[in-house]
Amino acid sequence: MPRPDPDTAAKAAAREANLTKPAGSLGRLEELSAWCAAWQGVYPPRLENVRILVFAGNHGVTAQGVSAFPPEVTHQMVANFAAGGAAINQIAAVQGADLRVIDLDLDAPTADFTVAPAMTEADCAAAFSTGFEAVDASVDALIVGEMGIGNTTVAAALSCALFGGAPADWTGPGTGLDAAGIAVKTRAVAAAMDLHGDDVGDPVEALRRVGGRELAAMAGAVLSARRNRVPVILDGFVATAAVAVLERAVPGALDHCVAGHVSGEPGHRRLLEKLGKAPLLDLGMRLGEASGAAVALGVLRCALAAHTGMATFEEASVSREG
Amino acid sequence: MPRPDPDTAAKAAAREANLTKPAGSLGRLEELSAWCAAWQGVYPPRLENVRILVFAGNHGVTAQGVSAFPPEVTHQMVANFAAGGAAINQIAAVQGADLRVIDLDLDAPTADFTVAPAMTEADCAAAFSTGFEAVDASVDALIVGEMGIGNTTVAAALSCALFGGAPADWTGPGTGLDAAGIAVKTRAVAAAMDLHGDDVGDPVEALRRVGGRELAAMAGAVLSARRNRVPVILDGFVATAAVAVLERAVPGALDHCVAGHVSGEPGHRRLLEKLGKAPLLDLGMRLGEASGAAVALGVLRCALAAHTGMATFEEASVSREG
Repeated sequence: MPRPDPDTAAKAAAREANLTKPAGSLGRLEELSAWCAAWQGVYPPRLENVRILVFAGNHGVTAQGVSAFPPEVTHQMVANFAAGGAAINQIAAVQGADLRVIDLDLDAPTADFTVAPAMTEADCAAAFSTGFEAVDASVDALIVGEMGIGNTTVAAALSCALFGGAPADWTGPGTGLDAAGIAVKTRAVAAAMDLHGDDVGDPVEALRRVGGRELAAMAGAVLSARRNRVPVILDGFVATAAVAVLERAVPGALDHCVAGHVSGEPGHRRLLEKLGKAPLLDLGMRLGEASGAAVALGVLRCALAAHTGMATFEEASVSREG
Repeated sequence: MPRPDPDTAAKAAAREANLTKPAGSLGRLEELSAWCAAWQGVYPPRLENVRILVFAGNHGVTAQGVSAFPPEVTHQMVANFAAGGAAINQIAAVQGADLRVIDLDLDAPTADFTVAPAMTEADCAAAFSTGFEAVDASVDALIVGEMGIGNTTVAAALSCALFGGAPADWTGPGTGLDAAGIAVKTRAVAAAMDLHGDDVGDPVEALRRVGGRELAAMAGAVLSARRNRVPVILDGFVATAAVAVLERAVPGALDHCVAGHVSGEPGHRRLLEKLGKAPLLDLGMRLGEASGAAVALGVLRCALAAHTGMATFEEASVSREG
């Protein structure tokens, strides 16, 4: 797998040190432009062509009553994306990003993972491959997100499989459950852990047994981004749980990813801590659809604009410290 | 002074509740669009015409050795702004905001406030008025920022005057002081508190005695924004200290302001806590120049786009909860 390009990183560091500002005074913006340059491996870094991929899937575990919304909403929201009416359509337009929505066999929900593996190996591999093929080196950055009624339960089960802890550590209100609803969700995750046992010790097997198609697709897209040196902005709990599979399989696999935001869904903060990723934004968003990452794209754009456009001390005849 | 418009607020709340997302799932973005609508007093809210004002001033207290940079840098950076080479030029361009830089008598620094009041009443009033006149009702939102070597010392002294505490509670590295440099800065603030004593108990008198021209101008601009129903995004430590004068003079005077970010300069976090303002961004930025607030403008734009552009449940035929 590609690593950060040292030559590009050196060029970015050299320029950053000469820009007309106190050293370090742009904080994380300085890190972001350096990170983006090193992963793109070309200098100067650029963010002209940013792709947002939203994958949609349906989940058999909704039979356990784990969501505040009925499962047909996944279909309905895919139509809403196509018509331009969802939150991500508006945010993508503000950011000038290319939004593509890919629905994954919505009429055939995955199996209820409290009673059987969610997917067959072929099904999981096909979804992963759909994500993998949706990314190529023509894009400057990638954002992945999802839509799927029931999928914060999936993310909780997958996180529990990957990182351990109690089921209740990973469950939360999702689209709006009350305490009784969260208890139902927690019991579903506990039932899945009991059923699948040690079989979820392998990260990819965990994805197949307690994941979902849109999660497999996100993992595939983010791996493909790595192969193509495309930096990634991660979205919320479900997207992060999906790609955590890669990190657990190969430590460092997410080094080309920045956490766009931390969701209001409590499991996400815990998951980011496990992954050692500090989020760019903390705005209580918990919608999915890549919405938080798409807002964070604006921060990255400002970072690159400052890095590439500012004058140096010499160019502007500005005195240095001391 | 104008208050939030209840009719516009009601329209925003009614629409928000019908948009195709779980209630509350856009977190602070939902608050921001409601806040912007209520202050603009027109519906739908808009952010087409956003003005960034950067005020520049020079400070006699630099004679105490309180900055890592020499005072001529204020002049040099104003030239850099004019030539388009500073960080704020690049960020303003990304955001499509109208940047204006106003320098305030740079060849006549304010008096060293460790030995005399920084400004005469006439001088302070003139700077305040310059800021006040720079804002009118033609703008949809305002961002104020500053440039002035030595002005984190000014902000520390003003914050100490307005909110009490020890001088060391409010001082920090600024543009890059080490521990010895911070100790020098803290002694300067302590000397100012000793000299001016109870005279800084009145907020406006504190501004005159331990403030500076760019701070007075920012306070004037933010008061004018309130008069014109223009929402404000606050920048960092110096900008926030300046407008805290208004809040201490008239509680609620900053209700039309949102904290764009919290600076890496430690006094800023304390100041925002005193003002009860939760920042939108926490990215370790500490440059001033309105740079943090200008990055935060992107969050506000996403918020308004989602609020005004999303489909309702009825329009999109999406099922509701339960």
